Amino acid sequence: MRRQANLAAQMSLTVVGSIAYDAVTTPFGERERMLGGAATHFALAASFFDQVRVIGPVGDDFDAQSWEVLQTRGTITDDVEQVAGGKTFFWKGEYHDNLNSRETHVTELNVFEEFKPKLSQEAKDCDVLFLANIVPDLQNEVRGQCQKARFVAMDSMDLWINIARDSLVETIAGVDCLILNDEELELLTEAPNFVAAANEILDWGPSSVIAKQGKYGAALFTKDGYFALPAFPLASVIDPTGAGDSFAGGFVGYVAAHPERPIDHELLTQAMVYGTALASFNVEDFGTERIVELSGNEIAARVGELQQMTTFAHQPIALRS
Amino acid sequence: MRRQANLAAQMSLTVVGSIAYDAVTTPFGERERMLGGAATHFALAASFFDQVRVIGPVGDDFDAQSWEVLQTRGTITDDVEQVAGGKTFFWKGEYHDNLNSRETHVTELNVFEEFKPKLSQEAKDCDVLFLANIVPDLQNEVRGQCQKARFVAMDSMDLWINIARDSLVETIAGVDCLILNDEELELLTEAPNFVAAANEILDWGPSSVIAKQGKYGAALFTKDGYFALPAFPLASVIDPTGAGDSFAGGFVGYVAAHPERPIDHELLTQAMVYGTALASFNVEDFGTERIVELSGNEIAARVGELQQMTTFAHQPIALRS
Repeated sequence: MRRQANLAAQMSLTVVGSIAYDAVTTPFGERERMLGGAATHFALAASFFDQVRVIGPVGDDFDAQSWEVLQTRGTITDDVEQVAGGKTFFWKGEYHDNLNSRETHVTELNVFEEFKPKLSQEAKDCDVLFLANIVPDLQNEVRGQCQKARFVAMDSMDLWINIARDSLVETIAGVDCLILNDEELELLTEAPNFVAAANEILDWGPSSVIAKQGKYGAALFTKDGYFALPAFPLASVIDPTGAGDSFAGGFVGYVAAHPERPIDHELLTQAMVYGTALASFNVEDFGTERIVELSGNEIAARVGELQQMTTFAHQPIALRS
Repeated sequence: MRRQANLAAQMSLTVVGSIAYDAVTTPFGERERMLGGAATHFALAASFFDQVRVIGPVGDDFDAQSWEVLQTRGTITDDVEQVAGGKTFFWKGEYHDNLNSRETHVTELNVFEEFKPKLSQEAKDCDVLFLANIVPDLQNEVRGQCQKARFVAMDSMDLWINIARDSLVETIAGVDCLILNDEELELLTEAPNFVAAANEILDWGPSSVIAKQGKYGAALFTKDGYFALPAFPLASVIDPTGAGDSFAGGFVGYVAAHPERPIDHELLTQAMVYGTALASFNVEDFGTERIVELSGNEIAARVGELQQMTTFAHQPIALRS
């Protein structure tokens, strides 16, 4: 645990999830060891919107530069548990076929294997909570400790759908928003498409479901409506690692930044746009490299572009019969 | 060739392509023999916007009911060549894996094998031309005969990219708009993604390129901008056959219906919305069954819904740094 000098009292956004070192090869280059992990990517994106508190384990090998990156834009790392004698979670993967497929070469859970989230009182008192992809039972336990949270969102993955479906369904029932890849929504519900899948999950407990669609964009389902936003068009994508967590960071961060507004379809729609913008920056370079140096002005400009690219004037036309 | 009583003088939209009988099995049902083919699906969708003239071959087996369906909303079939002793193009296929994959069981080209488009003067004088997916050289020949056309759009498929790429590239150079699946755009250009692919093709001749993305929607690239529209969210999709041609019918039809407007980014953007609406209706039932009975009011309502589902209020936010 590393104490920071100025603990802000107003922090309100807690994230629990992995902090990792990644080795990544894409058709456009490679990195042998770069800071990664779901909580890292989430925090870097969300820190534009609110002060973030990260919960997750690292090992002795977690270096000064990594602490610094994690603390970008004031993110609090007091709840990051540095396990003595342990090694940080390590993932090595390679992207093929124009980034359309991903192959995992190495997964070393290391300190993540025995991870039991310990929340400080400040972490428990969070206003907004994001449960990044970890064992569903742990997500549920953390969720239970954050009773004051007015918005709880979660991610998951196919692994838990396949080996811990009951726990996952129970965990989903306790959150406000499920953010999942569209194919995982179908796998989870056995529905024939993500529209039917998301609609079914709205009956399980969450008041909103987001279907992430990778390079195509994302779709939001709430009890009040549907909203879909295409991805920002990039002619050059360097590394997709962390795109989903950057999306979640922008999306959940936007909600956290608006404590005065009701968390309704309109707010979540606007949050989707910021999630989409952050995800698009994330993939422009390896790992955290682009988001670390990103400016608020760049985000604002991209949001404006996204609006222009998706807006049309509805001109009614006399149709033949 | 079947003469119709009232030949309208103002017709302006010509389509050349296949007219077929399809046998289709999906997880939701099957049809042993239904009217299909690219020109058929295109004409049914486009006929809401303008009078359509269809060019394509059929056999002796093409029955009265099929002529009637093809003539829906006044489509002119004078240029449909009924080959004596021939059999209509037949395709038999099956959809698996929640409609995500398609297997072809039978392809009988029949009269389509020897098809040489013969255009009447009225067909040649068209204002707008759509070249549905046929051999690129035939598309190019038809395109050359329609010198007055102010907008020419074309489709193609992976087969021609693989076995007739040079002809295809030459044909593309002569049209205004290429409409292709995003993966086919990548295959055609060897670009790493459809954004880079579409941008490259804009240098080949066309002033617009559309990347069809199936259940995710479609994206428009012009020299003046980018526009993307998600698909209409359907919890129940029955049969995707013809969706792309219905999209093209709505899209090209909308352009044909506005002879007074310049064919610019804005017009094509609005046309995309009608294409998306028509494609969404097409997949709600087998083959042509839904579009035949569709009303203009239903289309107008869906376009309004599409606008609502994709519109967001851009509320600038003070971002942290």
